[in-house]
Amino acid sequence: MGARTFVVVGGTSGLGLAAARLLVDEHRVAVLGDVPDEVATVVDELGCAGQICDVSSYEQVRDAFAEVVDRYDVIDGVAACASMWAGGDLAALSPERIRRAVEINALGTTYVFKEALHHLRRQGHGNLVYIGALAVTKPRPGIPIYRATKSYGSSLVESLAEAQHSNRIKVMELHPGPMPTRLQERVGDEFLDEIYALPEQVATEVVRLLLLAPDDLYVSGERVLRADGRW
Amino acid sequence: MGARTFVVVGGTSGLGLAAARLLVDEHRVAVLGDVPDEVATVVDELGCAGQICDVSSYEQVRDAFAEVVDRYDVIDGVAACASMWAGGDLAALSPERIRRAVEINALGTTYVFKEALHHLRRQGHGNLVYIGALAVTKPRPGIPIYRATKSYGSSLVESLAEAQHSNRIKVMELHPGPMPTRLQERVGDEFLDEIYALPEQVATEVVRLLLLAPDDLYVSGERVLRADGRW
Amino acid sequence: MGARTFVVVGGTSGLGLAAARLLVDEHRVAVLGDVPDEVATVVDELGCAGQICDVSSYEQVRDAFAEVVDRYDVIDGVAACASMWAGGDLAALSPERIRRAVEINALGTTYVFKEALHHLRRQGHGNLVYIGALAVTKPRPGIPIYRATKSYGSSLVESLAEAQHSNRIKVMELHPGPMPTRLQERVGDEFLDEIYALPEQVATEVVRLLLLAPDDLYVSGERVLRADGRW
Amino acid sequence: MGARTFVVVGGTSGLGLAAARLLVDEHRVAVLGDVPDEVATVVDELGCAGQICDVSSYEQVRDAFAEVVDRYDVIDGVAACASMWAGGDLAALSPERIRRAVEINALGTTYVFKEALHHLRRQGHGNLVYIGALAVTKPRPGIPIYRATKSYGSSLVESLAEAQHSNRIKVMELHPGPMPTRLQERVGDEFLDEIYALPEQVATEVVRLLLLAPDDLYVSGERVLRADGRW
Repeated sequence: MGARTFVVVGGTSGLGLAAARLLVDEHRVAVLGDVPDEVATVVDELGCAGQICDVSSYEQVRDAFAEVVDRYDVIDGVAACASMWAGGDLAALSPERIRRAVEINALGTTYVFKEALHHLRRQGHGNLVYIGALAVTKPRPGIPIYRATKSYGSSLVESLAEAQHSNRIKVMELHPGPMPTRLQERVGDEFLDEIYALPEQVATEVVRLLLLAPDDLYVSGERVLRADGRW
Repeated sequence: MGARTFVVVGGTSGLGLAAARLLVDEHRVAVLGDVPDEVATVVDELGCAGQICDVSSYEQVRDAFAEVVDRYDVIDGVAACASMWAGGDLAALSPERIRRAVEINALGTTYVFKEALHHLRRQGHGNLVYIGALAVTKPRPGIPIYRATKSYGSSLVESLAEAQHSNRIKVMELHPGPMPTRLQERVGDEFLDEIYALPEQVATEVVRLLLLAPDDLYVSGERVLRADGRW
Repeated sequence: MGARTFVVVGGTSGLGLAAARLLVDEHRVAVLGDVPDEVATVVDELGCAGQICDVSSYEQVRDAFAEVVDRYDVIDGVAACASMWAGGDLAALSPERIRRAVEINALGTTYVFKEALHHLRRQGHGNLVYIGALAVTKPRPGIPIYRATKSYGSSLVESLAEAQHSNRIKVMELHPGPMPTRLQERVGDEFLDEIYALPEQVATEVVRLLLLAPDDLYVSGERVLRADGRW
Repeated sequence: MGARTFVVVGGTSGLGLAAARLLVDEHRVAVLGDVPDEVATVVDELGCAGQICDVSSYEQVRDAFAEVVDRYDVIDGVAACASMWAGGDLAALSPERIRRAVEINALGTTYVFKEALHHLRRQGHGNLVYIGALAVTKPRPGIPIYRATKSYGSSLVESLAEAQHSNRIKVMELHPGPMPTRLQERVGDEFLDEIYALPEQVATEVVRLLLLAPDDLYVSGERVLRADGRW
């Protein structure tokens, strides 16, 4: 298979940017991000396409996907990397911050899946890779909201994978452990494990899943981490 | 322990109403619901207190709890039963319906937990019982959104239970199987198993958890169903 | 329902003994244990029936159940409490100790389920309650073998519950947190949490499940613990 | 990294044989199997080393690993593929067959892990890949015993991965969906999904994990299947 077209939602920083960087030499890439300046910078740096898109708005998600299809006809894979951090005790989080985390991580992810699957099913093929979090595997008293939004996404992937009734449309997920991305810097260093994975390392796994062919096996549920034995 | 005070969020129909009915003879009960007429009817029928409250509005949740505390001083237990059904294929669900399901079931549940725990911690005791769903235990291609919102709630309960660092504030969950409530009637009979539990039967378990004393053991994660062997 | 007949496998100490004690005033009880002196002591103390039975021997399990049926005709419920502790690092455990833990906790549990279900299905009703462990909910580097045997049992319960195709034969499980039983004393105090449940407290939940009527709902998957907020 | 040494436990048929075949051109491989003729055939065909080893005997496991170390000094990776099928209703399985399935799949796996980790820790590096089963993700009324033994193995991997406290010794697992191997032919075609993965396809994933370098990330928990949308 030659050059293909990939959409990286949340592709302007962290793991999404690292995945876009790995794809851009051989493939067509469109990054979606909600901050115009950041989208412009990445488009400039990588020479890829870019769309401004707040995933919590259905219209923006629909229009961003429609523009990619207008431009490239086919979408071969979508990486759903957009995510907002919301660490800290429930009592300490403002109602507005909770709402925003739920709107981006749960509602926005659903809209991205809805539009992505609409196009993949129309085409009859394509891959959807959701970036989950290792946090879903255990209760996390320190990050209840963030973990709950990731449990939502993971649950959605499991149900939607079964709903496709075809190997040609793969709905997959990958659970990274801690990475020193902007998402985590915001909450302070104390939350990072001493030993963590670099986004560049995890991005190779994201790309591996995006590049699976329609007749390849499903490969999903990967846990990818630099562990020091813990997960 | 004598008469105590309980808040039943989503107490105007289905399981919530059945739990309120069981509690009201011996305890003080406040039911919260988002439809004024329904709240009025239940207040009338049960002779309990009632508050109009759309759980997706933080202010309404905050004010409803504040009014209960104004009136009764102490809240001994909260049943989080408010839930919106959103069955059917992702492609068939409108963006607005998806948003509403996420706002009620995920965001609204978080606001209820935030306010409930604020008061329980201030008091130093009390029980919070979340009504999950057996649906979380397996992928459900036919109800991806509903299941994802319940996976969100279940994840939140697990994290918040650990975050209390005390046996005196119990954050618990109960997973009912199918019941013939209004929530399910809306989606059509075909979704109901032939054999299902009645809300009155499941309500006895909800009440059992609500009535646990501060020094009692945690009892959580119950799966309650009329099973015909399946779950 | 009046007096019924219950078999408590592993009923000579800890949680099993506590459950037998709660049942014996109103019901017929047979305790099964692998140490003749201990069985004799409990039979003496409680005035119940007793059978010597090493659960890792199919013949002994079969014969013990057959004798209970000979004596009482019907078995209304079985509590599967027999369990061997095997804490500590994999490197530190002897091959023989590992074998014994697997034979008692995995193989023996399977034989108990096989015989119990044989009789319950013949009768057309009855309850089987497996004592799992909260340890199954997270990786436990310090108790890999013990946890693996409990994961085995929990998996078996889930599959067998679905295999009955009837509400009248209930295969249920209960996951206690740490208790100061002989099972744990053997491994040293350092493994016990500071705050733990007493077997007498957890036994009330075991008995509650054993006493469910054929037409009652399934109630399963309970986590019962004195938590101090953790689990 | 150049040629390395791998042990494939259960390497004489199915997935294990397919993995050995992929490794043998560039690496040193020792296959372990319990049927002397089968080991001889594979040694002949692949030109690799072979050891006769019934994993349910600790002495045989210990000696087989010791001979590999004698011959090659270092073990870089171990694939734990030995597994016995035990499908069918609990009532239909003979006590002896149940015992054997538990001895091979649970006890034998534990012995393999014990010896493998002994050598990997002595060396300070190496990979252990356990072949789980997608069956662990849902209750399976039709294969309760087989699933329970795989739940045991999966639980063990999770605990032991955390117990290493180092990224250099990776304890990983991979969950294949149905494959038309000898393990499944034994139970009759009706158990196979219409669409299944070939051992050769899944083997590439086994080998990918075996070849991870000490400083690579952990990659574990993969679900690998040809799904037709189901899992």
